[in-house]
Amino acid sequence: MYDAIVIGAGPAGLTAGIYLARGGAKTLIIEKESIGGQIASSPLVENYPGYKSISGSELTDMFYDQVVNLGVDIEIGEVKSIEDRKIKKVFVDDNVYETKTIIIATGVKHRKLNLDGEDGFIGSGIHFCATCDGTFYKNKDVAVVGGANSAVINSIYLSSLCNKVYLIYRGKDLQCEEKLKEKVLNLQNVEILLNSNVIKYLGVDKLEKIVVKDKICEKEIKVDGLFLSIGMDPETSIKLNLNKTDNNYYDSVDTLTNLPGIFVAGDCRNKEVRQVTTAVSDGTVAAVNALNYLKN
Amino acid sequence: MYDAIVIGAGPAGLTAGIYLARGGAKTLIIEKESIGGQIASSPLVENYPGYKSISGSELTDMFYDQVVNLGVDIEIGEVKSIEDRKIKKVFVDDNVYETKTIIIATGVKHRKLNLDGEDGFIGSGIHFCATCDGTFYKNKDVAVVGGANSAVINSIYLSSLCNKVYLIYRGKDLQCEEKLKEKVLNLQNVEILLNSNVIKYLGVDKLEKIVVKDKICEKEIKVDGLFLSIGMDPETSIKLNLNKTDNNYYDSVDTLTNLPGIFVAGDCRNKEVRQVTTAVSDGTVAAVNALNYLKN
Repeated sequence: MYDAIVIGAGPAGLTAGIYLARGGAKTLIIEKESIGGQIASSPLVENYPGYKSISGSELTDMFYDQVVNLGVDIEIGEVKSIEDRKIKKVFVDDNVYETKTIIIATGVKHRKLNLDGEDGFIGSGIHFCATCDGTFYKNKDVAVVGGANSAVINSIYLSSLCNKVYLIYRGKDLQCEEKLKEKVLNLQNVEILLNSNVIKYLGVDKLEKIVVKDKICEKEIKVDGLFLSIGMDPETSIKLNLNKTDNNYYDSVDTLTNLPGIFVAGDCRNKEVRQVTTAVSDGTVAAVNALNYLKN
Repeated sequence: MYDAIVIGAGPAGLTAGIYLARGGAKTLIIEKESIGGQIASSPLVENYPGYKSISGSELTDMFYDQVVNLGVDIEIGEVKSIEDRKIKKVFVDDNVYETKTIIIATGVKHRKLNLDGEDGFIGSGIHFCATCDGTFYKNKDVAVVGGANSAVINSIYLSSLCNKVYLIYRGKDLQCEEKLKEKVLNLQNVEILLNSNVIKYLGVDKLEKIVVKDKICEKEIKVDGLFLSIGMDPETSIKLNLNKTDNNYYDSVDTLTNLPGIFVAGDCRNKEVRQVTTAVSDGTVAAVNALNYLKN
């Protein structure tokens, strides 16, 4: 029996672990994929106070060391559902864990185009993280889908590695910061396709071509890789009667939810600003709320 | 003319500076006393993610380096009042600065007993920070006033340095965590005086004795030093029509105040959890709000 189970090991979940352990709560953190959350794939974090410049994975490795050092258990597995009684049950793959409180810090996941064959090509031509996987496409041709900051940053990054970068955006003008727009417009090997949508993936074992449709016609483009930068959706699929907002984020006030003893922290909850700094704050507040709940 | 002036250089103010500078805003931070705020006087911070164990001053020195490195101006001075027009005026000692937005991150100040002669003895027998000033009282007799965690932590800390520690509390039982209570009760050189108030300071150039009154009698106690650990009050004395809560904190929702273009961050605002993690979050959110205000 745990005092607290934290679901998700990004900055919010790891910080919750630090505060829970220091508050004397027997704590388990369960992570589905990899430690560190979204920020772990960022090549450079320069806005977390205390580190002028550090990679996301180095930063979250330190969070992880800190939480393990405090005696928190860590388990890799996917939480499918939660049974919300006084003693709560957390169903993870084939295991069930019992706990008095739960902090959900499941973060966000990359949006996909939801085209035929997409899931099969993920990792075999389709990627999300340019800084993680761009290196596989050195001197090759790639496409980036999206038109906001992240798509443009990825295009700029890939232009220095790849032979050619197609930046494909459905809107009529890029939606990024002016400085980024200037920069990408000046890159000789980046071709920007506006008012354009990828409508089909082609390939056998791996992605070979994409079909792009603009206002006038459809054309096939040969690409070795494709990076989707079309935003994030909250990772809120655990079976549980937790209130959500219209756009599917967990609804909460200061990490408190409609279910007593269950708290939410980090990017998966409704809030305005999603940064490492606001995630560590959420983790702290959720842990303090859980510790108060345990006391009463 | 600045885009943003931040008042206060604790974790909230310094983080606001980082985000403002990275957002392209010409920024000035004004600090009344010393860089780092309350946490700078903490000997050990072990709950800030990214550092297993670090002194408060080392941590905030890094925040400071980061903000200076980004080109933010820093000025030492006390803000007396603010004139809230479209272009806002900040009155600092004999100077006036103009700015489009303001973030107030003035933090909290130590509570005093408000007895005769108190201000004169501060620094000459009366102190707030045991880890800063305890060393002046090696092998001497000191008193700590208060009964919550900070008073008990200070008593435990001073007991290892001093000959004798009087822990003086007006309540009938200490209000600290059980583990701290056990620890302080076992210390031979700590004498706990409950239901007791310090009612007078005696001394010529420096504090020499205190008069303590309990339910039965008054007595003089010879002490070389006295540490006040009776809580904090918000530092919200700048002349400005900003809404406040009943207990004098700045009233705000997600750092937004009743005055457009003026934001509040950190310990000086109404909130539940006051930690470095929540301060850096406030600084981030206030800066994002200020940058949005500047855009429109």
